[in-house]
Amino acid sequence: MSEASNAETAYTGPLVLREFDGGVLRLTLNNAPANALSIALMEELKGHLDAAGQDRDVRVVILAAAGKLFSAGHDLKELTLHRADEDRGRSFFEKTMKLCSELMQTIVHLPQPVIAEIDGLATAAGCQLVASCDLAICTDTSTFCTPGVNIGLFCSTPMVALSRNVHRKQAMEMLLTGETIGASDARDYGLVNRIVPKQYLTQAVNLYAQSILSKSSLTLKIGKEAFYRQSEMSLSDAYDYTVQVMVENMLARDAEEGIAAFIGKRKPEWTGE
Amino acid sequence: MSEASNAETAYTGPLVLREFDGGVLRLTLNNAPANALSIALMEELKGHLDAAGQDRDVRVVILAAAGKLFSAGHDLKELTLHRADEDRGRSFFEKTMKLCSELMQTIVHLPQPVIAEIDGLATAAGCQLVASCDLAICTDTSTFCTPGVNIGLFCSTPMVALSRNVHRKQAMEMLLTGETIGASDARDYGLVNRIVPKQYLTQAVNLYAQSILSKSSLTLKIGKEAFYRQSEMSLSDAYDYTVQVMVENMLARDAEEGIAAFIGKRKPEWTGE
Amino acid sequence: MSEASNAETAYTGPLVLREFDGGVLRLTLNNAPANALSIALMEELKGHLDAAGQDRDVRVVILAAAGKLFSAGHDLKELTLHRADEDRGRSFFEKTMKLCSELMQTIVHLPQPVIAEIDGLATAAGCQLVASCDLAICTDTSTFCTPGVNIGLFCSTPMVALSRNVHRKQAMEMLLTGETIGASDARDYGLVNRIVPKQYLTQAVNLYAQSILSKSSLTLKIGKEAFYRQSEMSLSDAYDYTVQVMVENMLARDAEEGIAAFIGKRKPEWTGE
Repeated sequence: MSEASNAETAYTGPLVLREFDGGVLRLTLNNAPANALSIALMEELKGHLDAAGQDRDVRVVILAAAGKLFSAGHDLKELTLHRADEDRGRSFFEKTMKLCSELMQTIVHLPQPVIAEIDGLATAAGCQLVASCDLAICTDTSTFCTPGVNIGLFCSTPMVALSRNVHRKQAMEMLLTGETIGASDARDYGLVNRIVPKQYLTQAVNLYAQSILSKSSLTLKIGKEAFYRQSEMSLSDAYDYTVQVMVENMLARDAEEGIAAFIGKRKPEWTGE
Repeated sequence: MSEASNAETAYTGPLVLREFDGGVLRLTLNNAPANALSIALMEELKGHLDAAGQDRDVRVVILAAAGKLFSAGHDLKELTLHRADEDRGRSFFEKTMKLCSELMQTIVHLPQPVIAEIDGLATAAGCQLVASCDLAICTDTSTFCTPGVNIGLFCSTPMVALSRNVHRKQAMEMLLTGETIGASDARDYGLVNRIVPKQYLTQAVNLYAQSILSKSSLTLKIGKEAFYRQSEMSLSDAYDYTVQVMVENMLARDAEEGIAAFIGKRKPEWTGE
Repeated sequence: MSEASNAETAYTGPLVLREFDGGVLRLTLNNAPANALSIALMEELKGHLDAAGQDRDVRVVILAAAGKLFSAGHDLKELTLHRADEDRGRSFFEKTMKLCSELMQTIVHLPQPVIAEIDGLATAAGCQLVASCDLAICTDTSTFCTPGVNIGLFCSTPMVALSRNVHRKQAMEMLLTGETIGASDARDYGLVNRIVPKQYLTQAVNLYAQSILSKSSLTLKIGKEAFYRQSEMSLSDAYDYTVQVMVENMLARDAEEGIAAFIGKRKPEWTGE
């Protein structure tokens, strides 16, 4: 939590709860009832993610939320207060949107996989947060929307993440109408991976986390980075690039161990190197 | 309707019906039975769209069709007549394909949302028209195909729009086999948003139109433009760009009004500024 | 089969069975039980495809596999043997990954459509093979995975093809967890086109092949090439490019014949020109 964000809000307690157990970092948005993405919350969350990116003990990150909503997106009251600024808020709005975009890209660039655990409504930048995670598991009563259009502020940054998860017409329907979709549509569209009953949500997410814990952290890091990089390349460039990624991966200790273990029908022992 | 297109066809009546009511512009292809996209029809349709793009009173566009077919695509007889030209039709074919591509991009670049209302078959450039609209609602008996391959003329321009709506293998199946898909596949693939019984088609489309009418036209314009522009950018560039879009949007009068209304729990009043 | 690959393995028989009948080239992976993509098999397969690309009699290619697995991907034993090389295998790994990527791109760039016929497990580079084909038909008991992460070697080249077939979160789930998906998910995700009962697999694939045989080979070649090229372009560039493709296609003999036949309500006779 930086001085700057303390200056912005009357922050007095953790807006993001941090739990760490056996390689699993669980970050819980704790800004009920709306879990609004205020400057303070975003800085706190980004701080935890930046630290995790440097921490070899963190093997997988779960992003959850306290209360009935996952997140309602930006803190509209905070934004509105700055309309009184000399520049009508321009610099604060820019600060907010930049920080939000950096936060989302921090998730994408984090070496560890990030799983969104959703129970309740994820709206606007809250929906963007879901779309930005590598995986997303939600309860059957969860809902999703990008309703900025209803308040005159189109969800233009959320759509960057949304439109990289779902087909164009489905993204456009959410963006132009602001309508809320249910968990089932979210899964069919590609925004979430799995729907589970509420009582099994944490258990289901933990199963994914345990699956990821059983892999080499180096291999996951190599693969996640390559996935997003190649997705922006032409087919030919993507192959040139991933061929080199595969060669370096093959020469790493964990691939040697993993392949030897597979051939020897034994369990691999990873060192993350 | 330009002089040029009058010269091309024996045009005597409107090939596109225009209705305007309460912000909703309804354009109906009126070239039964096939609603073929002749030069004359395309120029007429593009003329209406270009005018709509300049007309602040137009808030949403519905693209419908008279008769049993939505559209069978290019006018093959018109194209064939020009095989007798000195250049074997080259310049006329180029004129046709360019005009068609401009028409499709006019829909994409129009500041207002465009909804396709489909009842019946949409084939080749007719299917492209559906794919080019922002939203598409069809009856349960509607069908879609890109059968150019059956007549020796691959649907190469239609596939530009189709492949930006649906997954690669599904697009390839339609293009390589020319087979027709039903409404249900079209929805599952991402080509249309909703399927409704025939008797409710116009009502369902109007509900979408009314939803869009309730938004700020400026916000819709900002968002639609940003959507298609960011879709062609890298993640990092897309965020840099949309951050600026969000800042400008925040400083616009309608966002100030919309957010204030939301916080004040009242209905916003848009001015489109 | 080159001298080079004979040197790499104790190759003694065809690793790819070749059958040619009435325009249909059927290539069957014949390296049971795993149909591993050894250097020898990949060179043999690429040799058949390169030859097919030059052979006007080949109109469609079916890629099938003998035995219970479609393909388990790279030959891990072959790769492991080369860890004893002076360079710890680097040059051999690079040779393998480059050859594999060239093989996949050969399928994409082949003028003829390529249909994958899958019965059983397609894993890692085997799954990539499916994703690289233009169409894919599988039995209801077929399964798919990219489990490299389980042996320390992320499926970084397979994901190039996979992520161009399916949505991001679904690809990421397969890649990060290594879990196997069934035929039904594979179809819903967009990795395969159709699921059929085992006893009808070859029949179903042949129906697709016959459909493709009934088209002009020139038209298919024009369209397939344009499809993949335009998919990497901006909307505006894609239209500029495909307009020219359409004009050239219109001026080809087979389009003239096809359109004339359609207007004349007779069957077209293709010459492939």
